[in-house]
Amino acid sequence: MSLIVQKFGGTSVGSVEKIQHVATRVIQEVDNGNQVVVVVSAMGKTTDELFRLATEITNKPNKRDMDMLLTTGEQMTISLLSIALQSKGYESVSMTGWQAGIQTEAIHSKARITHIETARISEELERGKVVVVAGFQGIDINQEITTLGRGGSDTTAVALAASLKSVRCDIYTDVDGVYTSDPRYIKGARKLAGISYDEMLELANLGAGVLHPRAVEFAKIHSIPLTVRSSIEEKEGTLIEEGSNLEENLVVRGVAFEEDIVRVTIFGLEDEITGLASVFTTLAANHINVDIIIHSRTELNSTNLSFSIKESELDEASEVLNQNQASLGFKKVEHETGLAKVSIVGSGMVSNPGVAAQMFQTLSEYGIAIKMVSTSEIKVSTVVNRIDMLKAAQIVHESFSLESLQTSPQLS
Amino acid sequence: MSLIVQKFGGTSVGSVEKIQHVATRVIQEVDNGNQVVVVVSAMGKTTDELFRLATEITNKPNKRDMDMLLTTGEQMTISLLSIALQSKGYESVSMTGWQAGIQTEAIHSKARITHIETARISEELERGKVVVVAGFQGIDINQEITTLGRGGSDTTAVALAASLKSVRCDIYTDVDGVYTSDPRYIKGARKLAGISYDEMLELANLGAGVLHPRAVEFAKIHSIPLTVRSSIEEKEGTLIEEGSNLEENLVVRGVAFEEDIVRVTIFGLEDEITGLASVFTTLAANHINVDIIIHSRTELNSTNLSFSIKESELDEASEVLNQNQASLGFKKVEHETGLAKVSIVGSGMVSNPGVAAQMFQTLSEYGIAIKMVSTSEIKVSTVVNRIDMLKAAQIVHESFSLESLQTSPQLS
Repeated sequence: MSLIVQKFGGTSVGSVEKIQHVATRVIQEVDNGNQVVVVVSAMGKTTDELFRLATEITNKPNKRDMDMLLTTGEQMTISLLSIALQSKGYESVSMTGWQAGIQTEAIHSKARITHIETARISEELERGKVVVVAGFQGIDINQEITTLGRGGSDTTAVALAASLKSVRCDIYTDVDGVYTSDPRYIKGARKLAGISYDEMLELANLGAGVLHPRAVEFAKIHSIPLTVRSSIEEKEGTLIEEGSNLEENLVVRGVAFEEDIVRVTIFGLEDEITGLASVFTTLAANHINVDIIIHSRTELNSTNLSFSIKESELDEASEVLNQNQASLGFKKVEHETGLAKVSIVGSGMVSNPGVAAQMFQTLSEYGIAIKMVSTSEIKVSTVVNRIDMLKAAQIVHESFSLESLQTSPQLS
Repeated sequence: MSLIVQKFGGTSVGSVEKIQHVATRVIQEVDNGNQVVVVVSAMGKTTDELFRLATEITNKPNKRDMDMLLTTGEQMTISLLSIALQSKGYESVSMTGWQAGIQTEAIHSKARITHIETARISEELERGKVVVVAGFQGIDINQEITTLGRGGSDTTAVALAASLKSVRCDIYTDVDGVYTSDPRYIKGARKLAGISYDEMLELANLGAGVLHPRAVEFAKIHSIPLTVRSSIEEKEGTLIEEGSNLEENLVVRGVAFEEDIVRVTIFGLEDEITGLASVFTTLAANHINVDIIIHSRTELNSTNLSFSIKESELDEASEVLNQNQASLGFKKVEHETGLAKVSIVGSGMVSNPGVAAQMFQTLSEYGIAIKMVSTSEIKVSTVVNRIDMLKAAQIVHESFSLESLQTSPQLS
C-alpha cells in the first residue's frame, strides 16, 4: 500500500459539483489500494469574497483577524469534501491546519511551516480513512491561526508529502501540466512530460504561475516527486523530479515571460564599495524584491546602478530611496516603466555555452532591444519593452525548437 | 471595573453594516469603563447557506463534518467584529471556541459545555482588550470541533459569564424582550419587565425561541442575571433572575406554542416494568428527546405507550424502535403527525390549583380537541391539532388576561 498526497486548488473545488468530482478522483486512488491524504484550497472565489467583506470595514484590516477570516474558506472545503466521500461510502476525516499538526512561524499572512506533527494523520490513515486537510493554514506556538501566503496550499501538500514520506504528491489544477511556454499566447507551446526541480523553480519564479516556488523548493529538498495534472481531464501531467529520470534532455526546457517590470536607475552613487551594499540592504529591509542588477562605473568616483523590480513595488521603492538619498549618497534616481521580462530555462545550458548568445542573436535579428540581462546556470533573463514581450517569447520558443520533442541536445 | 458578557445573535450581525453597529454597542460598554467579552453567532443566513451546500451533496451529511462546516460561520463573524473594533481604535482579540477554552462533551451537533479554561480570555482582558468569542462551538477531549446545537451561542455567553464571574450577561437579539406570547401571532401579547429563571426555562423549552433552555439553566445555577434586549433600539429589555425581585406577580406569565409535534404510540409492550424503562433508555441513548409521555394499560400483560417528539426526530426514532423491536418486546409502533403543543407557564400556578382546569375549559368551549396533556408545578402543556394551535394560544392568552398588567393573582 502506497501513501499518496493529492492537492486540489480553488478552481477544482469551485462548486459542490466540482467537489463531488474531486471525490471521485480521490476514490480512484483509494480503489487502487493507496492511502490518500487530500489537501484542498478554499472554493473558487471564497477568499476574494472574504477579503471584500473585511475591506468593506476598513482598507487596512489587521493581519491576525484576516488569517482568522480567510482560514474559514478551506475549512468549508474540507468538510464538504469529507461529506462527499462519506456519502459515496468511503471513510474520511477532515482536519483543519491545527488539527493536522501543521506548525508554523508566529507570523500572520505569510508564515512558513516549521514542523508537522503527523501522529493524528498517521493514526487516521491506519484506520483506513482518507484524510482531508485544509491547505494554506497552520498554527503557531501561541495557538494562533496562521496562513502561509499565496500558493500556500501547494506548500501544505508538499510539506505533508515530505513529513509522511509519501511516494508521490499530485497537484491537480485547471491546467494539465507544465508547458514549454504559455499556450494561450505562444504558438507551438507544448506540455512537458518531465522537468527538474531547479528548472521548475526558475519557471515558477519567472512568472509561470502553475506552482508556488516555495512548494517546489520543499519538494526538491525532500526529493518528493511532484506531478502537475488536470483535475478535469484524465490526462498524464508533468512530472517534476531530479533531472536524472527525465525522458527529454532539452537544452532549453521553457520560455517564461512576465510583464509590469520597472527599471530603476540610480545615478552618481558616490561610494561604490559601501554604496552598493547600502542600497540593496535598505531595499531588502523594506521587503522590496530586486530582480536583475546592473552596475556600471562611468566616471571617477561615481557609479550608475540599475535594477529591475515589479511595477507594484515601484511606489514603495521610490519612497524608500528618496527618504534615504542623503545617507546612501547618490545624485538622482529615475525609472522606466512599460518593460517586461522574457526568460529561457533549462538545465542543459550549463554545458552549452552558446545558449545565451543564441537568444540574444534571435532577438537582435527581429529588432528587439534588450534593456537588461541576467544569467544563472540554468536560465537567461532579458528585459525588453512590454510591446515586444510576446513576440520575443514566440521567436525564442521557435529558435530553440521547443514545439517539437527532442531527445538529445541540439544547438543551431 | 465590571466584567460584562454581551451576546449578539445572527440577525444582529447579519451584514457588515450591522457588525459595525454591534461594534458601537460594544464600545459603549468599554467607554463606560467595563471589561467586555462579546459572543457572536454566524451572520444572518450563513448557517442555512452552509447547510444547503452540504445537503446538495447528501441529505444525511455526517455530524462531525457538519460541525466542521457550520463553525466557520461564527469564525467569520468574530474576525469581522474584531476588525471593526480595531478600525475604530479599540484593542480586541477574536477567539474560536477552542481558542477560548470552551471544552465540551465528545458529541457532535449537540455537545454540552463541560468546562471553560478561562486563562487566555482573562489574560487578554487584563491587557485591556475586548475579547470576541465564537458562540455555538467548542472542542472535545479528542481535539475535535463540536457544536452546542440550536441556540448554542446563548449557552456560550452564559457559560462564559458564569466562568468569568461577570456581573451581567446581556443577550442582544432582534426582539426587544420576553413577551407573554409571540406578538406576531397573538393579539395583546405584551413585553414582560421581568421573569424568573424557572418560568423562562419552561417558556424556552416550550418553543418560545428567544433564549435557549440550556442557557437559562446555566444562568439559574450560577445566578447570572440575564437581560434580553434589542440590538437595534435602545430600549429596556426583560430581566431574567430569581423570582423575588419580579415586579409583576402573574399566575400565568406566558403562553407558548410549538408546531411539528409527532405522537408516537407503541402497542402491546409486553413487560410493563422493564419495557417502559428500556424504551426510554434506548431512545435517550440515541439522543432522541421525548417530551410528553402517556402510559396506559389496556389489557392483561400488555401496555400501550404514547409519547411526543419533534417531527425532525421522527425518522431516527422510528429507526431505533424498529431495530430494537425484538429486545424491547412490543407488537407495533405507529405515529400521528400534524400536531402542535400549546402551553401556559407561571410560578403562580403552584398555589392556584384551578389553572389547568381553566385552560382545558377554555379549549373545550371553543371545540379544540386535546390529544395529550402534561403538567408541572409551573406549566400546563396540551397537544392539539396543528390547525388549532394559534387559535388555542389566542383564547388561552385572553382567558388569563395576559394582555393587561396584573399585580395580584386573579382567576376567573
